[in-house]
Amino acid sequence: MFVSCKTCIDYYPSMTGKNKKTFSFQRAQQAILATTRQLTNEKLVLDKVRQRITVSDVLAVMPQPSFDESTRDGFVIRERSVSEERVNRYKVVDEIPAGKPLGNILAPGTACRIMTGGCVPEGGTRVVPYEQCVEQNGQIIIDDSSLQASTFILKTGSEIAQGEVLVPGGVALQAGHLALLASCGVQTVTVVARPIVGYVCTGSELVSGADGPGNGQKVSSNSFLLGGLVVAVGGRSVDMGIIRDNEQELLDLFAKVKTDELDVMITTGGMGPGKYDLVEKAFVEAGGEVVFNGISMRPGKSILFGTLGKTMFFGLPGPPHAVSTLLNGLVGPALQAMQGVKGSWPRRVQAHLQHQVKVKRNDVLRLKDGVLTMEEGRSLVRFAGRLEMGNCFILLPPGQAQYGEGELVEVHLAIALCAG
Amino acid sequence: MFVSCKTCIDYYPSMTGKNKKTFSFQRAQQAILATTRQLTNEKLVLDKVRQRITVSDVLAVMPQPSFDESTRDGFVIRERSVSEERVNRYKVVDEIPAGKPLGNILAPGTACRIMTGGCVPEGGTRVVPYEQCVEQNGQIIIDDSSLQASTFILKTGSEIAQGEVLVPGGVALQAGHLALLASCGVQTVTVVARPIVGYVCTGSELVSGADGPGNGQKVSSNSFLLGGLVVAVGGRSVDMGIIRDNEQELLDLFAKVKTDELDVMITTGGMGPGKYDLVEKAFVEAGGEVVFNGISMRPGKSILFGTLGKTMFFGLPGPPHAVSTLLNGLVGPALQAMQGVKGSWPRRVQAHLQHQVKVKRNDVLRLKDGVLTMEEGRSLVRFAGRLEMGNCFILLPPGQAQYGEGELVEVHLAIALCAG
Repeated sequence: MFVSCKTCIDYYPSMTGKNKKTFSFQRAQQAILATTRQLTNEKLVLDKVRQRITVSDVLAVMPQPSFDESTRDGFVIRERSVSEERVNRYKVVDEIPAGKPLGNILAPGTACRIMTGGCVPEGGTRVVPYEQCVEQNGQIIIDDSSLQASTFILKTGSEIAQGEVLVPGGVALQAGHLALLASCGVQTVTVVARPIVGYVCTGSELVSGADGPGNGQKVSSNSFLLGGLVVAVGGRSVDMGIIRDNEQELLDLFAKVKTDELDVMITTGGMGPGKYDLVEKAFVEAGGEVVFNGISMRPGKSILFGTLGKTMFFGLPGPPHAVSTLLNGLVGPALQAMQGVKGSWPRRVQAHLQHQVKVKRNDVLRLKDGVLTMEEGRSLVRFAGRLEMGNCFILLPPGQAQYGEGELVEVHLAIALCAG
Repeated sequence: MFVSCKTCIDYYPSMTGKNKKTFSFQRAQQAILATTRQLTNEKLVLDKVRQRITVSDVLAVMPQPSFDESTRDGFVIRERSVSEERVNRYKVVDEIPAGKPLGNILAPGTACRIMTGGCVPEGGTRVVPYEQCVEQNGQIIIDDSSLQASTFILKTGSEIAQGEVLVPGGVALQAGHLALLASCGVQTVTVVARPIVGYVCTGSELVSGADGPGNGQKVSSNSFLLGGLVVAVGGRSVDMGIIRDNEQELLDLFAKVKTDELDVMITTGGMGPGKYDLVEKAFVEAGGEVVFNGISMRPGKSILFGTLGKTMFFGLPGPPHAVSTLLNGLVGPALQAMQGVKGSWPRRVQAHLQHQVKVKRNDVLRLKDGVLTMEEGRSLVRFAGRLEMGNCFILLPPGQAQYGEGELVEVHLAIALCAG
């Protein structure tokens, strides 16, 4: 081995190993989870809670149905008692369209026209569908032989009881949940506050897309990945722009993090061992506490996780591929956990590889962009093409150098696939 | 058979069979697709196109990388020609941080400090990583034995060529696409306009959640399903509220549809054979053309599809379960097709049933809410629980009365699972 460049050691103290805290992927997950504090709650009307996370069980305010309801268009009758003469004629006394209950009690031997969804009046014992009767001179004549066991009356609370749990706590509310809650009289739901997530892309080479890059410059593209993730997990994103590889700019940023009361701060870039990779230095100088500053995984080894006051801080590397892998594997799940989502680490499934895989360097866990599909009852996965968007990450654990076609591998679903 | 009630025939002309156009699910899909016209286009900046659909191939404006780029922190050197004396010492003449290209041409035998992502100057032939050299008195001495085949220079366009297709037409843009487009210098994208989708819940029994239902009344809940679907497929929703089972209100609504230039109008309720089920009557009176007014499928048999001027019209039944099934199976795919999404009918997969199924009435296609999961490389599906939100619909075609555990069945993925 050649002797390391002296200069490097001066520039990059963490490279000496003294301050290097490299965690496994699992340990990194645990450490993040241990640091995660749940956010405050807020009570909101139904219109405002789509994709928000329930704090606790949401109960039915009203039963379903909330009144005895006709399930057919026809006539609701009050049957005569058995002792009476058995003539199947009932006098039609009124009409009950949906939404308009009858004030009176139905007398024995009388009928009311009723529509599907109509409110069965007190005394009503059965709904006779139109096709099972004939209307004549203000009376209906019922075809006894066609009468079915069903009374075509859905009793109050027969579908959902009052007080029943409609949605458990820790669930992201979908449109279907909202419809269910509304129909059971729920008007407001207590949900977890949205995490406020600030992010900055660092790099003196970066310019915004609108400016257009000069020679040696690059368009800042990670902000799209960061913004996209924050939206996908229901956070509130604060795009703090681009800053240069300059310690003072970083220190100013971290000072702002403290005053802005961000729940989470994410940077990209500046995480390597280079002279201009100053994120960790500035973070520590600003009072940040490093939990880990490396992870035994590729891509994404150069990640710093720590806390700055009450703010969780993720320092991600610059390459977009590493950014998207870490956002999905660690940052997104942390944002979900803060909102109380249950089982929020990237959902793992097993799928059959659609092609052979040879791993050149199998020293650490490798995550590859994958495309997960289902075919004839099998879950299949393949590497995503060069410009193809994957929908999962294929895990290739250390130690195994090759995988055969059809072999079962573990797969992390991409956050968008897990949401909801 | 008992004779049908005369009154019914007067009230419900469509029940006579004369005007009944009942389609199979497949034929309904085809009919809707045949009616679908693609929307206009609009050119938008990258910040505004998340989840929007590309009109045509989006090409790289700049290659990737857009300059010869160092892949290591180290020194870029201009190697001496072979004829020259082979001393591995190079004079360090300058420094090239990321974003700051060197103006001059690198002379033979000289070196420049360079960072990962830095722009390799003209003349530079190789980057020597820090760990493969020693810096001494303004020179670097290179460890020949540790030199690798790689020059650690990523050549211009080696990852993505200028003019290469980054995203094909007909694709919903995800965050990853936007990052890719930005990095290749794309600033604007031409996307399909968002469909403007109006919807109304009909029913004299309906009240809004805020009002709270009186006896015999129900909270209007379908608007959450309608709004949720429109958001999921990228449409612009126009909630037109609740209207009563009253022909004039319906006629007023259809008049408004014509003047408001809605792309799609959806109603729920009022689609049965009852006296107050007036949607079809009003639609036809308002000049609407019925394409079909029934579908041989449960739930959801009572659906009307037609056109009113340039507006596509879906008259859905009232029960939320039927509404969600039809939104997923027919309305959502139509909204996606209008935006040019390719293969936009609900994505079908096959999965193994996790339990036996017995179908009581197997006369028509039945769709059941299902929960699709993956386990040990197999795709599994089961009926969703009573209050559980499914993520798919299980197809039970007519004719088959029972299914064994483990049997392969066809499944439609729910729209949210298909998006992106």
